[in-house]
Amino acid sequence: MNTTKELFPLVGVDVALFSVVDERLKVLLVKRAREPDAKRWALPGGMLKPNLDASLAGTARRVLADKVAVELPHIEEVGTYSGPDRDPRGWSVTVLFYALLPLDKINAVVRNKVEAVEWADATSPGHRLAFDHAEQLAAAVKKLRAKVAADALPLHLLPEKFTLTQLQNVVSVILGHPVDKSSFRRRLKSSSDLVELDEFVRGAQRPAQLFTASPRFSFTSSP
Amino acid sequence: MNTTKELFPLVGVDVALFSVVDERLKVLLVKRAREPDAKRWALPGGMLKPNLDASLAGTARRVLADKVAVELPHIEEVGTYSGPDRDPRGWSVTVLFYALLPLDKINAVVRNKVEAVEWADATSPGHRLAFDHAEQLAAAVKKLRAKVAADALPLHLLPEKFTLTQLQNVVSVILGHPVDKSSFRRRLKSSSDLVELDEFVRGAQRPAQLFTASPRFSFTSSP
Repeated sequence: MNTTKELFPLVGVDVALFSVVDERLKVLLVKRAREPDAKRWALPGGMLKPNLDASLAGTARRVLADKVAVELPHIEEVGTYSGPDRDPRGWSVTVLFYALLPLDKINAVVRNKVEAVEWADATSPGHRLAFDHAEQLAAAVKKLRAKVAADALPLHLLPEKFTLTQLQNVVSVILGHPVDKSSFRRRLKSSSDLVELDEFVRGAQRPAQLFTASPRFSFTSSP
Repeated sequence: MNTTKELFPLVGVDVALFSVVDERLKVLLVKRAREPDAKRWALPGGMLKPNLDASLAGTARRVLADKVAVELPHIEEVGTYSGPDRDPRGWSVTVLFYALLPLDKINAVVRNKVEAVEWADATSPGHRLAFDHAEQLAAAVKKLRAKVAADALPLHLLPEKFTLTQLQNVVSVILGHPVDKSSFRRRLKSSSDLVELDEFVRGAQRPAQLFTASPRFSFTSSP
């Protein structure tokens, strides 16, 4: 009998890293190199190392850097998954986080314990995922949508400078339905998250003004 | 060097159990009997026991039954607190849950590892709390308020049969400000969470109809 295993649960993290690619909400998946569930696609994740990590959010940042060379600028917790059966190695707890990044800031590469990386459709990833990761991914998408529906602006998904049309497109991609332009513009008028720039790009009819995120903007602390 | 301690974090739960008492939002606190932080008031909580618990929600139910003899009908996760310094016993993870119960269904009594129990004001408990429990309590109140502000009905705080005036009072106690009666009644009209009863109680001006929660009602899965 493995007493340590009976007394101490495995503790780790999983991360749903979202981006918008070709007007679709995508999530980064990794193909596991090792057992359990080797060769299965999964959300990137890993075990807490108490001697290295100052918090479980720190674990998430370390694991993403280590496995796929991605630096996470902000992360938000979705929830906890726990129990004796979700991982064959023993009683386990995982804390699920999500993060948003524009594709041009992500150069995910295969590093440790991973065979491949892929941007999969977040709502229908096209693989049977490892462990309870299908359930976790659905929960992360639900939380992201609820937050954007409650008026948080997903500015982390946009380039540094963007037009309001780009922002509206990203919001409608996340929500999965078109957004009414005039009410969307009205709500942006009262937002302190956006800073107007004195720069314009060629638009469909007339030049479109560029905006950037306010230095005080935080998706995590928004509604 | 204690290698086990360095490799395995402590994993536990804390619970913010809310009730409405004398038109105030209250939270159940326990006075700790043991070190660390003995004699300090704290949210009731305890350690995961992998051989007893099927999930961390199960840990929360077991610990509340064990320490203060309270059965939790529903619980909802608030978030995770973790790090090397929040508990002097070592690197620790706690998952915070909250629950709502009417006072007549709670007969909290002092059982294991607790010296006293108290219903404290949830927004100003009047004690310096143990560990990071002040931060946890504030997060639980914030989550409860956000949920009720987003239209979830806190029916778990009401007796089995209640009037709409009682419901409105509980909502305004949670939100910390009065609720407009006519817009509140309008929103209840479209709610599938309430069932009208063919029973009335004497009201201020005229008899007030009684309502009960729909069998399908779940505060946890509401908006």
